[in-house]
Amino acid sequence: SPQQKQEKKGHLRYNPLRDSWVLVSAHRMKRPWAGQVEKPPEEHIARYDPSNPLCPGNTRANREVNPNYDSTFVFDNDFPALQPDAPDPGSDQHPLFQSKAARGVCKVMCFHPWSDVTLPLMKRHEVVKVIDKWAELVEELGATYTWVQIFENKGATMGCSNPHPHCQVWASNFLPNEPALSDRCQRDYYQKHREPLLLQYAKQEAEKKERVVVESLDWLVVVPYWATWPYQTLLLPRRHVLRINELTTKEREGLADIMKRLLTKYDNLFEVSFPYSMGWHGAPTGTYLNEDNSHWQLHAHYYPPLLRSATVKKFMVGYEMLAQEQRDLTSEQAAEKLRNLPEEHYKTKEN
Amino acid sequence: SPQQKQEKKGHLRYNPLRDSWVLVSAHRMKRPWAGQVEKPPEEHIARYDPSNPLCPGNTRANREVNPNYDSTFVFDNDFPALQPDAPDPGSDQHPLFQSKAARGVCKVMCFHPWSDVTLPLMKRHEVVKVIDKWAELVEELGATYTWVQIFENKGATMGCSNPHPHCQVWASNFLPNEPALSDRCQRDYYQKHREPLLLQYAKQEAEKKERVVVESLDWLVVVPYWATWPYQTLLLPRRHVLRINELTTKEREGLADIMKRLLTKYDNLFEVSFPYSMGWHGAPTGTYLNEDNSHWQLHAHYYPPLLRSATVKKFMVGYEMLAQEQRDLTSEQAAEKLRNLPEEHYKTKEN
Ligand SMILES: O=P(O)(O)O[C@H]1O[C@H](CO)[C@@H](O)[C@H](O)[C@H]1O
Ligand SMILES: O=P(O)(O)O[C@H]1O[C@H](CO)[C@@H](O)[C@H](O)[C@H]1O
Repeated sequence: SPQQKQEKKGHLRYNPLRDSWVLVSAHRMKRPWAGQVEKPPEEHIARYDPSNPLCPGNTRANREVNPNYDSTFVFDNDFPALQPDAPDPGSDQHPLFQSKAARGVCKVMCFHPWSDVTLPLMKRHEVVKVIDKWAELVEELGATYTWVQIFENKGATMGCSNPHPHCQVWASNFLPNEPALSDRCQRDYYQKHREPLLLQYAKQEAEKKERVVVESLDWLVVVPYWATWPYQTLLLPRRHVLRINELTTKEREGLADIMKRLLTKYDNLFEVSFPYSMGWHGAPTGTYLNEDNSHWQLHAHYYPPLLRSATVKKFMVGYEMLAQEQRDLTSEQAAEKLRNLPEEHYKTKEN
Repeated sequence: SPQQKQEKKGHLRYNPLRDSWVLVSAHRMKRPWAGQVEKPPEEHIARYDPSNPLCPGNTRANREVNPNYDSTFVFDNDFPALQPDAPDPGSDQHPLFQSKAARGVCKVMCFHPWSDVTLPLMKRHEVVKVIDKWAELVEELGATYTWVQIFENKGATMGCSNPHPHCQVWASNFLPNEPALSDRCQRDYYQKHREPLLLQYAKQEAEKKERVVVESLDWLVVVPYWATWPYQTLLLPRRHVLRINELTTKEREGLADIMKRLLTKYDNLFEVSFPYSMGWHGAPTGTYLNEDNSHWQLHAHYYPPLLRSATVKKFMVGYEMLAQEQRDLTSEQAAEKLRNLPEEHYKTKEN
């Protein structure tokens, strides 16, 4: 078919959430790789490390002592990129030298008291606790801050410097670039089509099936049509939900399930604890709470860098930084590979 | 001063070339680093390696034999992301599943017959040859293609898999995201201010001095006010020039000089062959050749990842991917550091 012929040659796909294009060059996977290889993550991590500032009972850089927590544990980042008391710059500025105050808070959230677990290896009820805490933080920080960014950098390849399972929550008095762009795109689409972009998209993908990785009654995970990272996925509820704190108890349990299924497949892909950066996008908060945000749909983005193996990642460099993002396999190829992987974790499999 | 107080706390700076903001958190440099360290580049590279497909006289993946070139050498990428004959997808597409044909060519360009040199270590007249070849390729490929992206990925950290000094040139029948955005920003600015954005900017920076790294009669290098990468720089001519092939002989010699000076400082910063991705942006070509592009100014972007040392880079991950780019030192701090470095290369210095 012409569709298949096109797949083999380079083509562009449109990302409606970012109003931009990605270059898909599926034929590039065969090229030899003699470049940098990543150090695979440590396979044997101690459950408790007396020198790790994230473990229960240990002392952090600022001399505070962690409680003997037995579930999640949230504390203020000792080196915050955002602080609540940044002064305002003058308003009279040259158009080429514009600055703005950036106020906010940065929190760190441990998922579990043990250093040797990750989300896919945690029990469902433990993952639900993580989701509950995310919801609580969005509720609490969102009361005053415009944007609450929950994100997890997993693995040294993704700049994570501590093996203890944790994520971060940065809240700001401004709408950062990425959610601002996504807000605009979803708003424009809604005005034109009278339905939220991501709800229409989820319905289409659930029918088409070819990009679905895992699904349940309440949730859907796809490799989006416009994915840039090799095994990038988009996780979203089927119901129209604006923010994570609106999820029902049942939806939170379903979310814990689908996260465990997705992340188990990720780990099984190259039989390695799969590195990624992930984060939640939902309707803005703060003053936006009083506005109509019907164009928004809650979703999580997973951006994993590995391309060929546990040690060879995709580099988003020269052409990608200067011109346009480029990928070496189609979204359909990636989805099929993930879909066909077992849902039992390679580490807990009976031999 | 309030300006200095603000510098210490987080603040946002506006990037007028991308219509976006960067979060500057200068106080973050002190945080300890226990994460991934990069492998420093090989210090002793053989001048000629019989197994390196980029060396003169060697055979490449497609069995072609390289000539015994003694200056630059250009050939077609054996695994091109863009091909000239990609078929057109149908035009009747759902707004959430849009694709376009992507036609183009990908070339590789060796800078020098020797594997053990880099641009700062090459002679000025050898660097002029590289510039001449860049100009020639823009002229030649730009006759039909809309965008000719010249870029160099240097160092394994930046996805480069071959130590032989080289760059790439990818030409396409479409305007990629980054130049499309830059085109729109420069056009809007020009319509409002009746002068090209980057010419006004260069004049201001040449007067202010605090972000200047190196300068000459014809050229200027600054750490832009809105830099995202720690030691990012912007290189541009002082004269209004639309494309690299318009540079005079004298300007090309001046460019070779200033590139050597900048790249020597980069290498001297951590006494290591400094990794980066760089690339040229000039007015679009192809059908754009018949249009008014007065709003454009030729410039090169240098995006180097190293932050603290030869082995510790800045990770643009979770918050940066999901929300907004964030930097850990101000542009002024970075510029001062680079400005104060010697212009003699640490490798050729007499001891
Ligand atoms: O073409 P190369 O050098 O093999 O590949 C490198 O540059 C390309 C263009 O920026 C990237 O797409 C690749 O991820 C990177 O490894
Ligand atoms: O805050 P961390 O985990 O020390 O740092 C990591 O995540 C941050 C937020 O994405 C990035 O700015 C850093 O470059 C990265 O190393």
